[in-house]
Amino acid sequence: MSVFNEVLEANHGYVQGFGDKSRLAMPPARRFAILTCMDARLDPAKFAGLKEGDAHVIRNAGGRASDDAIRSLVISYKLLGTKEWFVIHHTNCGMEFFNNEVMSSMLSSSLETAELSADGFRDVGRGPGSTEGKYINWLTITDQAVSVVEDVTRIKSHPLVPSWIPVYGFIYDVKSGGLVEVPDASKIGRAPKG
Amino acid sequence: MSVFNEVLEANHGYVQGFGDKSRLAMPPARRFAILTCMDARLDPAKFAGLKEGDAHVIRNAGGRASDDAIRSLVISYKLLGTKEWFVIHHTNCGMEFFNNEVMSSMLSSSLETAELSADGFRDVGRGPGSTEGKYINWLTITDQAVSVVEDVTRIKSHPLVPSWIPVYGFIYDVKSGGLVEVPDASKIGRAPKG
Repeated sequence: MSVFNEVLEANHGYVQGFGDKSRLAMPPARRFAILTCMDARLDPAKFAGLKEGDAHVIRNAGGRASDDAIRSLVISYKLLGTKEWFVIHHTNCGMEFFNNEVMSSMLSSSLETAELSADGFRDVGRGPGSTEGKYINWLTITDQAVSVVEDVTRIKSHPLVPSWIPVYGFIYDVKSGGLVEVPDASKIGRAPKG
Repeated sequence: MSVFNEVLEANHGYVQGFGDKSRLAMPPARRFAILTCMDARLDPAKFAGLKEGDAHVIRNAGGRASDDAIRSLVISYKLLGTKEWFVIHHTNCGMEFFNNEVMSSMLSSSLETAELSADGFRDVGRGPGSTEGKYINWLTITDQAVSVVEDVTRIKSHPLVPSWIPVYGFIYDVKSGGLVEVPDASKIGRAPKG
């Protein structure tokens, strides 16, 4: 069966058991938001114990505090009342295996999917490519603890983020499913600026 | 119990039952990606039938094809081999209840959470505020079918997106849990440019 039909079939089953979830309200019931990576191995509802209606979940490549993630977080508290936020990066993240130069060079050579080897991503070199990639900051990661601190710091210092919102920093371990706090990040999150 | 401790307790339970998920690979096993809204009522893993390891999930306010969502989608196919993408907006989305002018005006008046009434969001007017909001495009939505078509069109015409990737457009109904295809969007997705 095609992915398209598999998704629709799974959705049909979900609708059958939907029950009283039709009564859920728009504002998150447990008043928090999670910013994490799009990685397929991560299921924030499962690893953080969320039911439908509980919390906002924002995901992008790396779980980075991009301008767009901040747009979403500001909407999350200003309009929908979340009161604390979790920034969760993870081990073995794809964002550790390249940098801006590697990505723009690979995209210039070909748009086709690269190969992943022990040395990182390697282009297959079947064109056409595009030079557009060099105008994008890919927000890659060198060290997860550093990237979590950077992102919590960026969020906490944004002029549209009230100083009193706690922002916790975590690393999710893809080998155990466990969340490990990044103490330096959560200290930023727990010390209101005033 | 605090949200912080609830999340850690739920995570502890997840770790106990983690099993052989430690062996999952980085590239999504079912080779597709979903772009959808951060809304708390949406659980893409449940409504689309995803297990850990299956698919990339990108989420922001509205499920919009922002620059950051496109950054994530390009990484998803160029480095991690996804082959088809779903753009899923939803009924009763918060993004329909304001526009750029309303948001920048409310943020100028106060950073505190606004009230949601039948007429839309209303500011509580307790300062301090910030004028920074007027420099952000909040990517609000007037009509879901239109926003889905816009976003699929933007993705399909991006120079870093190969023409052969199908991009399907859907609206998720928060009252039923059902996915309803937006035919105009999926036509764009299914007709490769060559």
